[in-house]
Amino acid sequence: MSENIPFPVGELPHPAREELILSQVLFALSDPARLAIVSQLVEGPLDMARCYLTDPTIAKSTKSHLMRVLREAGVIRNEPKGRGRTLSLRREDLDYRFPGLLDAILSSAPSGERLELT
Amino acid sequence: MSENIPFPVGELPHPAREELILSQVLFALSDPARLAIVSQLVEGPLDMARCYLTDPTIAKSTKSHLMRVLREAGVIRNEPKGRGRTLSLRREDLDYRFPGLLDAILSSAPSGERLELT
Repeated sequence: MSENIPFPVGELPHPAREELILSQVLFALSDPARLAIVSQLVEGPLDMARCYLTDPTIAKSTKSHLMRVLREAGVIRNEPKGRGRTLSLRREDLDYRFPGLLDAILSSAPSGERLELT
Repeated sequence: MSENIPFPVGELPHPAREELILSQVLFALSDPARLAIVSQLVEGPLDMARCYLTDPTIAKSTKSHLMRVLREAGVIRNEPKGRGRTLSLRREDLDYRFPGLLDAILSSAPSGERLELT
């Protein structure tokens, strides 16, 4: 089920809403860099190329891995769009399965993790 | 600051309320065995000896490590009491720093992680 190609063109697997596991979601959100990505998606979907890392020391290859952990936990969708990819937060699925969790985490996130795109 | 003695008699270090870090709290709660321990403390403090692991395959030495991760993240207190130790959930501190987070997690935890002592 795992792919070694970081980002093949096309669809990537996403767990169904019913398959989301609390532990995996908490783990995905327990990393500041991953949480910072999620915070960027609160206002709406974003081209992956526009999604940035708040920590400039993080390698671009790590960015792919961060996206993957978030996607496999069911926190974000990563879908092909034209030549690029679009990231979106699975807010409805998360709110349905874990009511209040996402809001509690986002409102508690350090300000550096709530950067908004201008 | 770290101790190699798993559970010395006496006081162990606990982070102050202001020192709690969201990422560390989420990480501590992202493990089912750790979350199961937290669930046992919802009703009140518990002697560590009475705190059990829901997964019987987990070694007792691992139990000490689970407690340590929870304590160092500021999720629980682990304090000496007579010849034993008492564990308690730092609910007030967690609610103060991360409003709604603990309740959202506890209410979303799988039933196996909400076992109550009888």
